[in-house]
Amino acid sequence: MRIQSSHIDQYNASAIKVHENNYRITKELLAQKSIDADAVVEKLRQFQIAIPSWALGAGGTRFGRFSTGGEPGNLEQKLDDIGLLHALTRSAGAISLHIPWDIPRDAQAIKQQASELDIVFDAMNSNTFQDQKDQALSYKFGSLSHINADVRKQAVEHNIEVISYGQALGSKSITVWLADGSSFPGQLNFRRALDNTLRSLQEIYAQLPADWQLFIEYKPYEPYFYSTVIQDWGTSFLLANELGNKAYTLVDLGHHLPNTNIEQIVSTLMYRGKLGGFHFNDSKYGDDDLTVGSIKPYQLYLIFNELVYGLENNTAQNPAPAWMIDASHNLKDPLEDLIQSLEAIRLAYVQALIVDRQGLWDAQLNNDVSVGQEILQDAFRTDVRPLLQEARLRSGGVIEPIKAYRYLNIRQQLIKERGSVTVATGL
Amino acid sequence: MRIQSSHIDQYNASAIKVHENNYRITKELLAQKSIDADAVVEKLRQFQIAIPSWALGAGGTRFGRFSTGGEPGNLEQKLDDIGLLHALTRSAGAISLHIPWDIPRDAQAIKQQASELDIVFDAMNSNTFQDQKDQALSYKFGSLSHINADVRKQAVEHNIEVISYGQALGSKSITVWLADGSSFPGQLNFRRALDNTLRSLQEIYAQLPADWQLFIEYKPYEPYFYSTVIQDWGTSFLLANELGNKAYTLVDLGHHLPNTNIEQIVSTLMYRGKLGGFHFNDSKYGDDDLTVGSIKPYQLYLIFNELVYGLENNTAQNPAPAWMIDASHNLKDPLEDLIQSLEAIRLAYVQALIVDRQGLWDAQLNNDVSVGQEILQDAFRTDVRPLLQEARLRSGGVIEPIKAYRYLNIRQQLIKERGSVTVATGL
Amino acid sequence: MRIQSSHIDQYNASAIKVHENNYRITKELLAQKSIDADAVVEKLRQFQIAIPSWALGAGGTRFGRFSTGGEPGNLEQKLDDIGLLHALTRSAGAISLHIPWDIPRDAQAIKQQASELDIVFDAMNSNTFQDQKDQALSYKFGSLSHINADVRKQAVEHNIEVISYGQALGSKSITVWLADGSSFPGQLNFRRALDNTLRSLQEIYAQLPADWQLFIEYKPYEPYFYSTVIQDWGTSFLLANELGNKAYTLVDLGHHLPNTNIEQIVSTLMYRGKLGGFHFNDSKYGDDDLTVGSIKPYQLYLIFNELVYGLENNTAQNPAPAWMIDASHNLKDPLEDLIQSLEAIRLAYVQALIVDRQGLWDAQLNNDVSVGQEILQDAFRTDVRPLLQEARLRSGGVIEPIKAYRYLNIRQQLIKERGSVTVATGL
Amino acid sequence: MRIQSSHIDQYNASAIKVHENNYRITKELLAQKSIDADAVVEKLRQFQIAIPSWALGAGGTRFGRFSTGGEPGNLEQKLDDIGLLHALTRSAGAISLHIPWDIPRDAQAIKQQASELDIVFDAMNSNTFQDQKDQALSYKFGSLSHINADVRKQAVEHNIEVISYGQALGSKSITVWLADGSSFPGQLNFRRALDNTLRSLQEIYAQLPADWQLFIEYKPYEPYFYSTVIQDWGTSFLLANELGNKAYTLVDLGHHLPNTNIEQIVSTLMYRGKLGGFHFNDSKYGDDDLTVGSIKPYQLYLIFNELVYGLENNTAQNPAPAWMIDASHNLKDPLEDLIQSLEAIRLAYVQALIVDRQGLWDAQLNNDVSVGQEILQDAFRTDVRPLLQEARLRSGGVIEPIKAYRYLNIRQQLIKERGSVTVATGL
Repeated sequence: MRIQSSHIDQYNASAIKVHENNYRITKELLAQKSIDADAVVEKLRQFQIAIPSWALGAGGTRFGRFSTGGEPGNLEQKLDDIGLLHALTRSAGAISLHIPWDIPRDAQAIKQQASELDIVFDAMNSNTFQDQKDQALSYKFGSLSHINADVRKQAVEHNIEVISYGQALGSKSITVWLADGSSFPGQLNFRRALDNTLRSLQEIYAQLPADWQLFIEYKPYEPYFYSTVIQDWGTSFLLANELGNKAYTLVDLGHHLPNTNIEQIVSTLMYRGKLGGFHFNDSKYGDDDLTVGSIKPYQLYLIFNELVYGLENNTAQNPAPAWMIDASHNLKDPLEDLIQSLEAIRLAYVQALIVDRQGLWDAQLNNDVSVGQEILQDAFRTDVRPLLQEARLRSGGVIEPIKAYRYLNIRQQLIKERGSVTVATGL
Repeated sequence: MRIQSSHIDQYNASAIKVHENNYRITKELLAQKSIDADAVVEKLRQFQIAIPSWALGAGGTRFGRFSTGGEPGNLEQKLDDIGLLHALTRSAGAISLHIPWDIPRDAQAIKQQASELDIVFDAMNSNTFQDQKDQALSYKFGSLSHINADVRKQAVEHNIEVISYGQALGSKSITVWLADGSSFPGQLNFRRALDNTLRSLQEIYAQLPADWQLFIEYKPYEPYFYSTVIQDWGTSFLLANELGNKAYTLVDLGHHLPNTNIEQIVSTLMYRGKLGGFHFNDSKYGDDDLTVGSIKPYQLYLIFNELVYGLENNTAQNPAPAWMIDASHNLKDPLEDLIQSLEAIRLAYVQALIVDRQGLWDAQLNNDVSVGQEILQDAFRTDVRPLLQEARLRSGGVIEPIKAYRYLNIRQQLIKERGSVTVATGL
Repeated sequence: MRIQSSHIDQYNASAIKVHENNYRITKELLAQKSIDADAVVEKLRQFQIAIPSWALGAGGTRFGRFSTGGEPGNLEQKLDDIGLLHALTRSAGAISLHIPWDIPRDAQAIKQQASELDIVFDAMNSNTFQDQKDQALSYKFGSLSHINADVRKQAVEHNIEVISYGQALGSKSITVWLADGSSFPGQLNFRRALDNTLRSLQEIYAQLPADWQLFIEYKPYEPYFYSTVIQDWGTSFLLANELGNKAYTLVDLGHHLPNTNIEQIVSTLMYRGKLGGFHFNDSKYGDDDLTVGSIKPYQLYLIFNELVYGLENNTAQNPAPAWMIDASHNLKDPLEDLIQSLEAIRLAYVQALIVDRQGLWDAQLNNDVSVGQEILQDAFRTDVRPLLQEARLRSGGVIEPIKAYRYLNIRQQLIKERGSVTVATGL
Repeated sequence: MRIQSSHIDQYNASAIKVHENNYRITKELLAQKSIDADAVVEKLRQFQIAIPSWALGAGGTRFGRFSTGGEPGNLEQKLDDIGLLHALTRSAGAISLHIPWDIPRDAQAIKQQASELDIVFDAMNSNTFQDQKDQALSYKFGSLSHINADVRKQAVEHNIEVISYGQALGSKSITVWLADGSSFPGQLNFRRALDNTLRSLQEIYAQLPADWQLFIEYKPYEPYFYSTVIQDWGTSFLLANELGNKAYTLVDLGHHLPNTNIEQIVSTLMYRGKLGGFHFNDSKYGDDDLTVGSIKPYQLYLIFNELVYGLENNTAQNPAPAWMIDASHNLKDPLEDLIQSLEAIRLAYVQALIVDRQGLWDAQLNNDVSVGQEILQDAFRTDVRPLLQEARLRSGGVIEPIKAYRYLNIRQQLIKERGSVTVATGL
């Protein structure tokens, strides 16, 4: 199923009048603060977020999975789903592929399909945290960090293979999420595991094309429950530094211990030019993988505040970070969930864009804590949703994506096409 | 120092035009959703928050305290400070007194002063977590829970004395924050400590006037670091149930373990009619006592969402909760900090008032998770600040309190009156 | 496969000499402190722990599962596995059955088999957190708390069916772990969900045989990630009190927020006679379900310290709690993992038994914090493993169960019998 | 007050017989595992722990402080107190000085006194988290990271002055605990604060004598509650790397977010030769500064397991770390508290020394998780206290320090000498 522009026009016709009024009002209100709403809208239009190929079906927990209907059964259908998202929102113009769940058997055809949908290929993702059916050696006790050199070799080769798939599609980066760790004291030797990981990464890095980037994710726990080899940003940063200037740290919002100040980590990484990208999601307890912005929207805004500041004052020449959603859709329609995530990310981005930077800087110079807080809260409390709508409208998307999605009966049509009991590959 | 209405008028004159336009716009936007802005404003005008007598000076940590100037040196000056707050915001019309830091030596005069300032006396607070100079027995190892009956008796009598101070002033409730606990396994016998606490509270409760309420606070740790006798809402609820129908649980937002779902606790207490009141503040790590709404504004809103729902559907006949700020002002001017807290509380309250309750209910009936989230986020993302300004304006306060506070040079005048090196009693 | 007593004798013969020496030494050392080692050994021999029927195969996470060989394929084989454990350790003389994973189709035969293995039937467990193949209505959005009365009815009937299965086997209790909750603010109405839960539990309770107990588990999160209907002991306690005197709270060690003082919760529940039982496991981050005692052995000991004290001073007539292991075996041989858990539980129990209660009491009377700590640490630091060995020996078990398990090649035989690629029902 | 060796002999006479028997038994038990108890005792005798000059009086919280009697009133008395500790335990042969609380006005006399007491000068500690009476500029808004260059300069000069005090005494290192941070979003610019910190540290480092080390502490929060400039080991490691090979990271056990795997951090730092030292304490919730080993003794042991392994396999040539206690004594007699901390540290050290390293290595090679756990638990569960006693005895200390301390009425004598209401400088 693909969305025709006539569908979009039809929906927008019903909402345009209210929107135009709201946008006009918001523009005036922002003008009071010397903010040019149109300029913000233009920046926002350029802001594209990658959708992971594994996030288009229902997720689950170790206690089970409740399926949803009309899930995509193969890579082509996944691309189609992202195409739907992108047609509605004009902000999901990239896919992040997972290997081996979504191997592009015919790269040319996949590229062609993506191109038709106006979608590019963002970071590739390898998987050495599960055993595949035909796999020679098990990753039960690790992969890149494994005590056994043969297992490490297999894992290294898998990553190199993922790169080659990516090259065929035009991707320019690979994300390594290394789940390796231990669940019990005594299970592994920390130092040796870290050293093995460094050596394995060096072998992968040696095969990295000149114009590629390698992103190293970190996470404190799960699926192992005592230690994780790359447990925090410090470990990822250490590895990225030892690898070289094509290696970067990737921040997944859910991969932190309770109460971590993530925005400061973002700032520190950009201070040394080592922020590679983001996995967006939200969480209350652990790596809950909930809809972005559903739990801690102010934290998300503070993170974007650092990102916008960092990119505007890019002394360490940090490359443009990769933006990606990484959530699990256990209860909601995955496409609705992704629409809500996209909206929350863009909201935080716009809020960060309208921060009174000069005023903030002056307040900081004077240690005027109250005013510093006022300035950040002012941007956050401003209702900038009309700017998000305007950006979509100008790019050919719909004003209100969730409403349009329902109005157009998209899920029902997908169920009709694909069936009501479906299982997408992924988590 | 007192603020003349002419000062307020003078400031408002400079801001009224922009405000009127913003209020008109907001009113129209809310009308689109069938919300009557004026009715919300009237509800908001009735909403008064108590200021604790110990929060008007600079707070500190165990590592020290950096003083601020112009702090109030006695109860009369503290009342004056709250008078300033109330004159500006028209939302701080109550004081919560702490004994023995702020003993009203001349109750009649204090009542008279408060009355002139339009301030009433909210919950009284006892203190058995510190030793006072002339104190016979030490609370080092507990008070109401102490192993020694004489110490318990002394602590009980102190609480009864606090009630009598409150009676003289017209207060109708006492808050017991029992810090008692232990810092090491083996230090105390949990069961005996809890049983002693119950018996001590029963003795206090026996002296509670018929029209009074007793609020029992809970807290997981600090100032003791292994156990606290009343460690969580469950323990407070157990005690309140055993005491009787004038005993209630009090929720301090900072008194929870990491990641606690506080809004659900609020709902459960109201479900059984046992929510007595609130201590508002915000925190990232522990009982940080930061400005309300400065860290997790969405959580604050979700709590108000439960409060508004609970009071509108008050099947268990929960009495109107006591609202109080309990923060520590280590870095900011305490009055500015309190203004920001008042604003954040009122913002959350208004956001909760404009939630589409019927729509939310329908979504819940259909397990429509996406729409349930949309409805809550819609109210939160709406900029309702003009309603807060309008409520102040209608009640004779200032449109923008922080700006007016600075415009009127209030702190400078307080420093002139009281000196630049001052120490208020309190934390 | 069953273990012959000759196998046990054979193994013990190799270890008896060292053991006897160690036991003699330990007995002398304890005698220095006026502790009768033999009496402790006899108490320990009476201490039996239930094994859950779902813990005999490899567990996994949402990221996958690495299988182990020789897993039991049906209830009979699971009983056999527990029989092996019990034969070796003489401390696993009970099974806790999960329905519908392990429905006893032929109760008579199952009872007969259990009796031969000297195993009794501990608490039954219902499951309304997963959908079964032939299930009419889905539990995706809850069960006992569901907004839809038909779903609640289905879940109530399932629990009543579980009770009837238990009656046929001689069980005397049912554990309700209610996973119900929500993953997003707005998804459910807290109060209605709790009220529905209470009503559903009342319907189950009405069908509870006169000599049965109902255990109500609590958990802060997972599988839902914003709220859980029974989020903490306070909620479980509230429900148990409303249900009546056959309802109790069950404590799972992994079901707490970070840093919770669990031992104090145990004490509070016993203070009011409402501690129903335990699910033992260990964890570092969340509900990690690791081997008991592998992460925080001192906490486990402190919990047993409360249990032993509470049972020796049982003023509220708390019934004897149900002891059960509830762990997930993702990496280790499940039987070895269970042996280690049994050992850790028994170790903590013996350490708690040898605490100098009178000395501790005296220290508490004098607020002698240092000595209180010394006394608790003294028992914990004493090496009482020879008492555990002696208890096994006297009961016909093996001196060193892990070593014996390997010496007897038990896993290899199970693989031979059952195959190397097996999947047990369960998590 | 000083302890005569006759006092020690007198006490030991009463305990020697039991001790000799216990040591003999323990030696035999260890010999069964091919461990030479005497060799362990000799290693232990070399193991000295520094006592901070601020830990000899009663500590407190922001809620107050309950004093103890006989506290030392000046540096000389503090040295005397450590002298008492060292005479009893023979393991506290170093002092860590804090400036400006304990400025050595007459360095020669202080050195002489320390020499008589057999005490050396460990790391010096600077203080830029409090304002001193005669201080020109305030540290309320930071010190080494301050936005104002003059404040930074003052803080840098203070550190350089601390180094010069240390040189006069023979110290060889300085510990920088930088409390700088912020309590509200917007208060400071993360990147600038970090950059200012780096530059300030570089200025201090430039003045560091050739044979000195600079230790950089980290901490996530407190006394600031939103951000801390050096929030984690990664930030400290980044700074230490940029400074040079005399700069190292210092680990304070209480300075971590909930559930942090500290032992892995230790391993990672040693992997790159950047572990400078330790501040020992224990905690359940935050930076509780409790007696070492009183809450999580197994974690402490796992940390020592990494330390012992790291020092025995010191491929990165990490220098010998500085060992120091950093606790706050709110309830116990500070000297008793320190004795308990010393005992817990030494216990963990000995347990780590007797780990079967070869067996552990073999288990790890085979991913034999159960056996890896067994080996670590075996050492931890072994009662090695007689080795600690033997080490003290051989070095001229007492067999049982807490008992001897009370037997010798030390606190009573200190109160007699110094008075019962005393306040030591410090926290």
